[in-house]
Amino acid sequence: MTETPIRIGADTIGAQLSAVFEAWGMPEAVRRPTVEIMVETDLRGIDSHGLAMLPLYARLREIGVLNVAPEIRVVQERPVMALIDADGGLGHAPAAMAMDMAIEKAKAAGLAAVAVRNSAHFGAAGAYAMRAAEAGLIGLALTNGKTPGVVPTRAKRPMYSTNPIAFAAPAGVNPPFVLDMATSTVAIGKVKLAWFAGKELPDGWTLDPEGRTVKDAGEAFDGHGRLKTGWGQTPLGGLAEMSSHKGYGLAIMVEILSAMLSGARYGATRAARGQGGEDSEDVGHFMLAIDPAAFRDPDGFAEDMDDMIDALRATPPIDPGEPVLVAGDPETAAHLERSEHGVPVPAKLIEQVRQISRAANAEFMLSNET
Amino acid sequence: MTETPIRIGADTIGAQLSAVFEAWGMPEAVRRPTVEIMVETDLRGIDSHGLAMLPLYARLREIGVLNVAPEIRVVQERPVMALIDADGGLGHAPAAMAMDMAIEKAKAAGLAAVAVRNSAHFGAAGAYAMRAAEAGLIGLALTNGKTPGVVPTRAKRPMYSTNPIAFAAPAGVNPPFVLDMATSTVAIGKVKLAWFAGKELPDGWTLDPEGRTVKDAGEAFDGHGRLKTGWGQTPLGGLAEMSSHKGYGLAIMVEILSAMLSGARYGATRAARGQGGEDSEDVGHFMLAIDPAAFRDPDGFAEDMDDMIDALRATPPIDPGEPVLVAGDPETAAHLERSEHGVPVPAKLIEQVRQISRAANAEFMLSNET
Repeated sequence: MTETPIRIGADTIGAQLSAVFEAWGMPEAVRRPTVEIMVETDLRGIDSHGLAMLPLYARLREIGVLNVAPEIRVVQERPVMALIDADGGLGHAPAAMAMDMAIEKAKAAGLAAVAVRNSAHFGAAGAYAMRAAEAGLIGLALTNGKTPGVVPTRAKRPMYSTNPIAFAAPAGVNPPFVLDMATSTVAIGKVKLAWFAGKELPDGWTLDPEGRTVKDAGEAFDGHGRLKTGWGQTPLGGLAEMSSHKGYGLAIMVEILSAMLSGARYGATRAARGQGGEDSEDVGHFMLAIDPAAFRDPDGFAEDMDDMIDALRATPPIDPGEPVLVAGDPETAAHLERSEHGVPVPAKLIEQVRQISRAANAEFMLSNET
Repeated sequence: MTETPIRIGADTIGAQLSAVFEAWGMPEAVRRPTVEIMVETDLRGIDSHGLAMLPLYARLREIGVLNVAPEIRVVQERPVMALIDADGGLGHAPAAMAMDMAIEKAKAAGLAAVAVRNSAHFGAAGAYAMRAAEAGLIGLALTNGKTPGVVPTRAKRPMYSTNPIAFAAPAGVNPPFVLDMATSTVAIGKVKLAWFAGKELPDGWTLDPEGRTVKDAGEAFDGHGRLKTGWGQTPLGGLAEMSSHKGYGLAIMVEILSAMLSGARYGATRAARGQGGEDSEDVGHFMLAIDPAAFRDPDGFAEDMDDMIDALRATPPIDPGEPVLVAGDPETAAHLERSEHGVPVPAKLIEQVRQISRAANAEFMLSNET
């Protein structure tokens, strides 16, 4: 049912994104980190959050809720904290700036946090947590989201977004530990894949407007491949008896740190007021960096990290063909493979990028690749 | 199958704990916060982590791995961080001290974190997060655990403990948001209750030594009501198809912040080396406090918290008899009810406390209650 994706080199994807953003009038200082993070996300195999986001960003720009030339400002600052106003632009540049500030401050003081308000979608949260790990620090990156899609335990209406948690910590010999997870049970993309494959959905992946678990994914989607209004995803856990209240609680923790702390808009209120579709963005992010060297000998920390990662990977697996993984392993493997062979891009997405490029009067660059 | 518990006043439970700890030789400065936190935990309905822990603590003391007269020391300190060595004693006093230090430092700087090493069981993590919320701050409290009980996704051997996450944030009119969750799917206590009730276990609550889900809880327990060696709990999510890798990743995040950062021992290594039974404790805790007032007008923060909590509670429920809750609601209700009517204590636990009191030459105080 799905065609084989076409492999495209990371540099080409980057050049394409850059051309479109430049045509939109996005200043170089905003464009550079945005493109860099989107390409890196594709290389790490998180297909839903890199180039595939361009159609949504184009749509947000079209309807006038995305500022392509934002003036990103630090509106509050102390030695170990800051608050950034993203001026209604995409979240990548202000979130990267926030984590970089947190890293610098944490190196001096031991830890620091920077919050961002008045922002929009920032891609994959893991990209920001990883900036800290690359600098030898522990990083935590959170964001709330605009579209209410997740249904609280006991409820029958979606009240908040998939509010992800990303956490990274450096090791010594091993690549960093990088957890990057939505606080929902599964991504919508997984539900779609089950639909395409004609598979019955497991209990607790998707709920109908009465809060009942959905078996046939086909029932849940509208004509545009989005969940129908009132249908929803579940918090991690999936079902009440599987402790979905924990996933729900974690999501609200993310909402508090991302939106409440920064003064951005929060999901529950959008949901209660029937907002979240095409109204203004104003999502919030939260970046925390901690320097292990402030607490103990950093070499000892790195050795312990390696020792733990090695022990986890060596755990006897149920199926010898499926070894036990550590968070970040699949992404590291994808990065290696895709850096060599290119990023697989579905033909349908290439066509969308072609249309977006043409509409923006930007050069279309994805056609010559094989 | 279970007898009706006997209601005992919180003051009596506190006096009883204090008498036993004093008889053990625990100094007043350690005893006071320990008793206070254990009683508060019982009042909040977290029965597994208050008085019910006394038999385990008595056992740890008996086998010589618990220092009842610890010298709790700050071994590292900066304006926004500190590291505490708990000297092998129970975790309550050093964890409370750690959070109180984090609160004071966060009030001055915006945020602060204090780690604890060489500690032991500290009861319910929520107690420490709540200290921050009571001071008007956001609090995060984490701990690793000694006994490997949770099986990583794809694995067939438990590799780490139930590594809980507690997070609290103050509201205005509403009581604080208090999330206090193990990163496992369900507590062992829930599995036991299903066993007592003769109910079949849901898939993904408990695993046998081959990593297969267990239907009959009776098979999983040994003669002492503990899981048999090699049998395990699952990470939040329960099954791979329900994203148990997320619960597994969260648990390792907790392990990194609690044990790696402080230099305490970490679960995976204990597990790989067959430790965790009756060897030394040396668990680690992590306490973070953030002052919303450093980021924005605190009244605005409190109002937004109330607004979100109200919106979540007002979400249309599946069953009108089971309204949508916000994390902390069940504990707040239990506190109210138990402050008036006493804490329900099972007869079997009362008998264990009687024996512990007698062995310690401490007065037994739970007998006169009705």
